[in-house]
Amino acid sequence: MRFIIQRDRLVQSVQDVMKAVTSRTTIPILTGIKITATEEGVTFTGSDSDISIESFIPAEEAGDEIVEIKETGSIVLQAKFFSEIVKKLPLGTVEMQVANSFQTIIRSGKAEFNLNGLDPDEYPLLPQIEEENTLKLPADLLKTLIRQTVFAVSTSETRPILTGVNWKIENGHINCIATDSHRLAMRTAPIEGAENSSYTVVIPGKSLNELSKILDDNSDLIDIVITENQVLFKAKHLLFFSRLLEGNYPDTSRLIPTESKTDVVVHTKEFLQAIDRASLLAREGRNNVVKLSTVDNGFLEISSNTPEIGKVIEEVQTDSIEGEELKISFSAKYMMDALKTLEGTEIRVKFTGAMRPFVIHSLNDENITQLILPVRTY
Amino acid sequence: MRFIIQRDRLVQSVQDVMKAVTSRTTIPILTGIKITATEEGVTFTGSDSDISIESFIPAEEAGDEIVEIKETGSIVLQAKFFSEIVKKLPLGTVEMQVANSFQTIIRSGKAEFNLNGLDPDEYPLLPQIEEENTLKLPADLLKTLIRQTVFAVSTSETRPILTGVNWKIENGHINCIATDSHRLAMRTAPIEGAENSSYTVVIPGKSLNELSKILDDNSDLIDIVITENQVLFKAKHLLFFSRLLEGNYPDTSRLIPTESKTDVVVHTKEFLQAIDRASLLAREGRNNVVKLSTVDNGFLEISSNTPEIGKVIEEVQTDSIEGEELKISFSAKYMMDALKTLEGTEIRVKFTGAMRPFVIHSLNDENITQLILPVRTY
Repeated sequence: MRFIIQRDRLVQSVQDVMKAVTSRTTIPILTGIKITATEEGVTFTGSDSDISIESFIPAEEAGDEIVEIKETGSIVLQAKFFSEIVKKLPLGTVEMQVANSFQTIIRSGKAEFNLNGLDPDEYPLLPQIEEENTLKLPADLLKTLIRQTVFAVSTSETRPILTGVNWKIENGHINCIATDSHRLAMRTAPIEGAENSSYTVVIPGKSLNELSKILDDNSDLIDIVITENQVLFKAKHLLFFSRLLEGNYPDTSRLIPTESKTDVVVHTKEFLQAIDRASLLAREGRNNVVKLSTVDNGFLEISSNTPEIGKVIEEVQTDSIEGEELKISFSAKYMMDALKTLEGTEIRVKFTGAMRPFVIHSLNDENITQLILPVRTY
Repeated sequence: MRFIIQRDRLVQSVQDVMKAVTSRTTIPILTGIKITATEEGVTFTGSDSDISIESFIPAEEAGDEIVEIKETGSIVLQAKFFSEIVKKLPLGTVEMQVANSFQTIIRSGKAEFNLNGLDPDEYPLLPQIEEENTLKLPADLLKTLIRQTVFAVSTSETRPILTGVNWKIENGHINCIATDSHRLAMRTAPIEGAENSSYTVVIPGKSLNELSKILDDNSDLIDIVITENQVLFKAKHLLFFSRLLEGNYPDTSRLIPTESKTDVVVHTKEFLQAIDRASLLAREGRNNVVKLSTVDNGFLEISSNTPEIGKVIEEVQTDSIEGEELKISFSAKYMMDALKTLEGTEIRVKFTGAMRPFVIHSLNDENITQLILPVRTY
């Protein structure tokens, strides 16, 4: 293997595939990045066996030569050292060459690195995926779907299925659901390619977080291929594979109340900041429980109290409060997480009594549902 | 105590005095910030008993009212909660009021906090310092003096005196010296007010680091008052006290070689980057040892080698190499730390053989001396 490559492209590809590489693996070769040069270009692969990422740099793009391939071949290099080295190379071009017994020379200007490589034949093969049905989502919408739901997955391994996001695809729509059994986030959106097929899969939250970091914030369509135990996301020159979680995702539809007893419309940012301030003195337990109660003249009172430190009480002007009076307690953290995902300047909160889950929507957009279970303190 | 104050000024003062507050103190009241309101304004104090910081907000400045004092008095509030609260207050003005038994109300807009305060009479008094002799340094020069020397103090408590920077002041000059016994940093500058007095003190490195963070990067003169066991830095509305280290600082003057056998002039940035690259594959021990040797045609060869990972070799063009041929090994970290403090695009390195300390200066400025002890590897 021998080629000369533009450094900036090399750095970008290595940075992308590094997102799948972990030093905490039981398979030593997975601490490396696999590099394969063909006449068409150079492919970089990183994997922790749950997530695998492949980044391709074409020999030529839009008439410009990006890689000059001198000899095809492949090698695996220690990811930690290789990624640090490429970032610090002195010139805009880099020569890479595999010599005897996997010794690899990386040359840029007057700097020459000689790295001990590993046998590329030992690197596991990526899943082979038949591309029968391809779904399509714009990259920015995909990132938004992830951002609005993935924060609500469980971080506990007691019910592993809840560490993933449930994607239900049917009738041309995708419905993403995440819950840790104390709160639930749900987002619906139209999706291309699902007119005649339906899927329900659970994608690990960690995979979606890493995917979101790699995708650009533009409207380029991402191809999504779902198989029995893998999902593949295809962007330009980038393949992102994730295993799926096995097991049945709980039916969450009955959790979401269909009626409400107290309806509040309030300015999102003012409400969020008041909750944030109240949470400063709400250190009981991990999740900073605050109290909310309706008061006269369309005000909400937000308060918290930790006797050894002090208390805070604040009134927030609402646009409207309809229905019954209410006193309720909930986690300030869950409320702030939920509010940060909602678009628009106003939100509607629908309460069904102090001990029942409540639902938060953007005022005129029910595509996002955030649900929170209250805490018993009154 | 009761006053109404501009929030931005309150936030800035609290942030400044917080630099002296630590939660790891054996004196519970020092986890608090002391607030004292007089007719002239409000004073905030934080201390960990090594460092004490006092920030004053005048009632009036340049004809603008900054604080409206309603009632004088004082209180101590938990630093951690108080500092988080003031940052998140909703309006540009804040009312603070001490009610019964140290209960303190902080009110801004419709938000009202009620904090349990502590008895201000229990807060230790700051050192009383007689201002006989006042030295003066511009803030930006003081920050530069600190930056160029403090990184070289020892982090080990085996010789506590070496955790400080030795300031020698005489004949109108200040000489700052730091060493961890593997390297030494020295900086000389003129200082105002030392025409007829001389001092030699050792200031804890930690104090100087905190001082540097608080000072603005301008040429305002900072007053420096030195006593037997304290040093006081006075900026506008800010007092910074630090205790001094006790004991005799070692005489370092004999360490610095007066002659040299090999003189190299090289471009600072190119040399630094080559060392940085070589250090990537130099993981033997903590300090990333790299090798330097003179080669033909005015080149330096920088190299390192870790058999299980690989090796790197690089040639750096010099402006000149004068004197004997040389092969020497040293810590890449120490070299990079030293190079980053030097001003100007070119440096001169004076070697006195492979086993002797060597000295690095800016090409035409010997006010900064960086000295490094080599490592025995050849």
